[in-house]
Amino acid sequence: MSDLTARTAGERPVAIIMGSQSDWETMRHAAETLEALGVGHDCRIVSAHRTPDRMFAFAKGAKAAGFKVIIAGAGGAAHLPGMVASLTTLPVFGVPVESKALSGVDSLHSIVQMPAGVPVGTLAIGKAGAVNAGLLAAAVLALSDPALDERLAAWRAARTEAVTERPA
Amino acid sequence: MSDLTARTAGERPVAIIMGSQSDWETMRHAAETLEALGVGHDCRIVSAHRTPDRMFAFAKGAKAAGFKVIIAGAGGAAHLPGMVASLTTLPVFGVPVESKALSGVDSLHSIVQMPAGVPVGTLAIGKAGAVNAGLLAAAVLALSDPALDERLAAWRAARTEAVTERPA
Amino acid sequence: MSDLTARTAGERPVAIIMGSQSDWETMRHAAETLEALGVGHDCRIVSAHRTPDRMFAFAKGAKAAGFKVIIAGAGGAAHLPGMVASLTTLPVFGVPVESKALSGVDSLHSIVQMPAGVPVGTLAIGKAGAVNAGLLAAAVLALSDPALDERLAAWRAARTEAVTERPA
Amino acid sequence: MSDLTARTAGERPVAIIMGSQSDWETMRHAAETLEALGVGHDCRIVSAHRTPDRMFAFAKGAKAAGFKVIIAGAGGAAHLPGMVASLTTLPVFGVPVESKALSGVDSLHSIVQMPAGVPVGTLAIGKAGAVNAGLLAAAVLALSDPALDERLAAWRAARTEAVTERPA
Amino acid sequence: MSDLTARTAGERPVAIIMGSQSDWETMRHAAETLEALGVGHDCRIVSAHRTPDRMFAFAKGAKAAGFKVIIAGAGGAAHLPGMVASLTTLPVFGVPVESKALSGVDSLHSIVQMPAGVPVGTLAIGKAGAVNAGLLAAAVLALSDPALDERLAAWRAARTEAVTERPA
Amino acid sequence: MSDLTARTAGERPVAIIMGSQSDWETMRHAAETLEALGVGHDCRIVSAHRTPDRMFAFAKGAKAAGFKVIIAGAGGAAHLPGMVASLTTLPVFGVPVESKALSGVDSLHSIVQMPAGVPVGTLAIGKAGAVNAGLLAAAVLALSDPALDERLAAWRAARTEAVTERPA
Amino acid sequence: MSDLTARTAGERPVAIIMGSQSDWETMRHAAETLEALGVGHDCRIVSAHRTPDRMFAFAKGAKAAGFKVIIAGAGGAAHLPGMVASLTTLPVFGVPVESKALSGVDSLHSIVQMPAGVPVGTLAIGKAGAVNAGLLAAAVLALSDPALDERLAAWRAARTEAVTERPA
Amino acid sequence: MSDLTARTAGERPVAIIMGSQSDWETMRHAAETLEALGVGHDCRIVSAHRTPDRMFAFAKGAKAAGFKVIIAGAGGAAHLPGMVASLTTLPVFGVPVESKALSGVDSLHSIVQMPAGVPVGTLAIGKAGAVNAGLLAAAVLALSDPALDERLAAWRAARTEAVTERPA
Repeated sequence: MSDLTARTAGERPVAIIMGSQSDWETMRHAAETLEALGVGHDCRIVSAHRTPDRMFAFAKGAKAAGFKVIIAGAGGAAHLPGMVASLTTLPVFGVPVESKALSGVDSLHSIVQMPAGVPVGTLAIGKAGAVNAGLLAAAVLALSDPALDERLAAWRAARTEAVTERPA
Repeated sequence: MSDLTARTAGERPVAIIMGSQSDWETMRHAAETLEALGVGHDCRIVSAHRTPDRMFAFAKGAKAAGFKVIIAGAGGAAHLPGMVASLTTLPVFGVPVESKALSGVDSLHSIVQMPAGVPVGTLAIGKAGAVNAGLLAAAVLALSDPALDERLAAWRAARTEAVTERPA
Repeated sequence: MSDLTARTAGERPVAIIMGSQSDWETMRHAAETLEALGVGHDCRIVSAHRTPDRMFAFAKGAKAAGFKVIIAGAGGAAHLPGMVASLTTLPVFGVPVESKALSGVDSLHSIVQMPAGVPVGTLAIGKAGAVNAGLLAAAVLALSDPALDERLAAWRAARTEAVTERPA
Repeated sequence: MSDLTARTAGERPVAIIMGSQSDWETMRHAAETLEALGVGHDCRIVSAHRTPDRMFAFAKGAKAAGFKVIIAGAGGAAHLPGMVASLTTLPVFGVPVESKALSGVDSLHSIVQMPAGVPVGTLAIGKAGAVNAGLLAAAVLALSDPALDERLAAWRAARTEAVTERPA
Repeated sequence: MSDLTARTAGERPVAIIMGSQSDWETMRHAAETLEALGVGHDCRIVSAHRTPDRMFAFAKGAKAAGFKVIIAGAGGAAHLPGMVASLTTLPVFGVPVESKALSGVDSLHSIVQMPAGVPVGTLAIGKAGAVNAGLLAAAVLALSDPALDERLAAWRAARTEAVTERPA
Repeated sequence: MSDLTARTAGERPVAIIMGSQSDWETMRHAAETLEALGVGHDCRIVSAHRTPDRMFAFAKGAKAAGFKVIIAGAGGAAHLPGMVASLTTLPVFGVPVESKALSGVDSLHSIVQMPAGVPVGTLAIGKAGAVNAGLLAAAVLALSDPALDERLAAWRAARTEAVTERPA
Repeated sequence: MSDLTARTAGERPVAIIMGSQSDWETMRHAAETLEALGVGHDCRIVSAHRTPDRMFAFAKGAKAAGFKVIIAGAGGAAHLPGMVASLTTLPVFGVPVESKALSGVDSLHSIVQMPAGVPVGTLAIGKAGAVNAGLLAAAVLALSDPALDERLAAWRAARTEAVTERPA
Repeated sequence: MSDLTARTAGERPVAIIMGSQSDWETMRHAAETLEALGVGHDCRIVSAHRTPDRMFAFAKGAKAAGFKVIIAGAGGAAHLPGMVASLTTLPVFGVPVESKALSGVDSLHSIVQMPAGVPVGTLAIGKAGAVNAGLLAAAVLALSDPALDERLAAWRAARTEAVTERPA
């Protein structure tokens, strides 16, 4: 997959933010997916609840900072994706991090059930959601980046080819 | 219950905020409960998602404005109570408003499952929760207001006396 | 809001598809939102289960047909969004239509819990999700359309201004 | 149980398909059950999401290939059973594979809640469901295979006899 | 669809049973579907809880009575499909009838979560499940009835053709 | 607690039945509780699904055999308690055994949601439910056994006394 | 059914209690069932939350008052059945009243999930549960009342006979 | 954080009660939080079900004993917080302890769904809820204790500062 990893120099169009250090175990899969697709990205801890000012500043300044897409992961009463979406018109994709007691059902509800007016494109609970947030961000950027579009298509094709005919 | 409604002149220690006009049908029960207990209150629409700046200004200024307790109601991906709690150290009580598809389970999860560090004392889904938010706010204020404590005890006693012996 | 409705002539970058005629009551809110934002769109019934060939042809040909974003709504065992996403690298946004017995929980699970590799950005159950799918599609397109970006910002600002100070 | 394992030579009437290699740990119980009953079967990985073309080709060609019954297992947003059912009139039995965060509730919803017109006979989540999918496929085939019917009855009788009188 | 309704004279290979008269509103859709496909069937009320002897007699005698497939619908603690399946090796398809408080989730759990050894092929909650139980029974019978197989294919084709291109 | 264990000679008024050997790990807590209270009991494996004839014979003969109360434990699509209750007028108490995927929610639904006419007094999921089934059976028998009533009261008093004042 | 309604003169062995007047619509079905079986009973409103002293007095005095069985119905955070059970060794049967937002799932959890040591035999949510609480109380009393045992058997037989052969 | 731990001499305004010794593993986080904030507290085991008299005595005497706020933790059919709230007008905050089978969903329902008239301010399931109960109690007390208000603000500020910029 080495031909997919050519870095888009000078660009970090995707911001990956998460509510706490413990979310990194999940969210690093978004980063690794973007890495594999050669999409520049920036990873930060931005807690809606512990650092609301940092969150406001980040979300309000995200467009001016050059970000095109924001990926936000959080667990439990997961307010980060929706609050960031309320403060920017950039596309925001949310990843429900698996929570301890409720297995991420609370995270999912808190992220996906946004009221009309403030959208968060929500992915699956946990690692699969983080990978897919990276892919969806890439798909959005690929609309105006034919080279990325090719790398994305190649990534998908490689996945298809990796499916064996028979279980073993 | 007219003896309970003597207004505490010049004071509006409780703020009742809600995410949208449609939440008023639920949240007015908090206001009516405080009214019955003679506790001054102030009702506002503060939407975490549609008016994030208003929410920030409200929450950061609530203590200076003289509020002692904040009651916040919201439905669906209900971020208002938790976000306000992240911006003030005043006690915040949350009311999950019943949502259409998920009957308020999403509201409940979004309000009650706050991470360690930022508490929201959550009441029941819907009208009962709004009444109880009013009572809990009164109980907090009654800790330093003996007259209110008496009115609260009288309100509770009246409820007890209203329970009939037999169903009919 | 009439200044927002200037139609982007000659372009229908968004496809809105749904599993059955009965989903239109929900999905028309996506169409109306795009209409309000002046974003061209095309509405079709494409059933994963009753017209799988139509679905395959649509999804495989969507990019060549000039679509940039696909909005797919379905209820129950809602396979349409995920299957379309498996057949194209265009961004796909899914709307869980409220189902009768399970209130859309089944629709939500079927749409959002996609495996790593095939993303569907999922919105809320029902009407709010349909509105937000339109907004999210517009946000994606606005990345390369400054005029749309302004209309989107104006739409959001109008929503903010419409929030009254007090409930009534 | 060795008398049950006489292989029906030259026939593989049951196809067992699954979405990924990781489903084999569950689905092998369907294969082993058919093995014990002497029913020929064929196990393949057919991913609705990663190999949609393979899935289309398989499902459309299943009847011509001589299959009588299809057993399909998948987890999460499990689209494989329903999509295959939309492409063939052969009986399709679905096995919800236990998923990580939601314990297979998502798999169950995605498989069982099919709309009117495209049936999937759904079994229990996990290993028990896989065993039972094998038994149900055998029951269908036994309708026109008296020898299999006897083997099936013997298998059931052996299970009954294996139940001890007392716990220990 | 009149060409589909030619009755297979002299045969009633499908038994449709249900726990109570109130289940008929749901289960009649199974009967109507079989009617449309020209498949003979027999509808009875057999309550696992109120008429356990009738249930035992029915299930033990079903094969001798000439039935090939059993469709069983029940709601709440829905034991009928599983108990019948424990008493016969005929294929049993279960329809979870929508219950009042729990919307059929209890019915679904009681029918689908059968232990290894006794399969019930479970369909969707409510009317869609009843229609699909009829279709699945027909699919099983069509394996040895080419004329029925053609009627089934025609029924499916008619459904496909009935899907309009555009919502209205 | 040795004074509680004096065996009521010659009597085994409580039948403890369970669907499989694996349920014993849970149901032995019912037996041990009855043992501690000096209540005779008889433990058997009676599977509704694998040994329906044994179940019928047991349930129909339970009263004649001298049983006064039946405790039935089962997991998943747990039909044993309800089916036994349909075949006897003796009081039946059901214990939902914790299931693998759904943690006993399926067991609980299958046992507690009985239709009007056939009651099963249902206890908590798992070990606590098994202990309490033993206690409830004892409470029923104590209505006509003053010595048992005293032992039961002593058992409860000992539990109360065992609660320490402070956590440690 | 008039022969079943002969009143057991001078005895009211069953107490039916409920948390509020609004529960009567559900709980009257327990009373009517006992009435039909000729079992004396006494209906009272005893609120765990609004009249805790009345509840304590009732529960502690129930045995001395001559009650043999207590039926307790409540909704939401339904503490009445469990609290009464903690204050008496009489058998307590709980009826989860259907709640507004959560359809009685909260009531069910609050009643059935009692810790080891304090049993509540729980019936189905709503009306069916109330009917069955009456039947279960009668079954307990019938252990030492052969005439009631006969009436109970007759009641059950009448229910069996009332099941028609065919749906209509 | 040593400057926060100066003990408020002679005062134990917060009672922390829990249903059993096993809840201490969760509830000690409430105690440690209050310890860190220099708020006096008193920890006791008070079981609603095993020691109802102790509970009644505690709750009725809590105000006279000088307590200002009560924190109550319990699991399963968690009646302790609501019952205590029914016996005092002091503010009661409830912590749903994670239960084995249902992961604390039962605890949450039993605590939060209180009827109108008796409020329990409910925190998150498990450890986070216990920490937050301590913080909320401190916030209430800080309304009339400026020094505590400063310590609380400092605690929150320290948490904010502890959030790193980047995941690692």
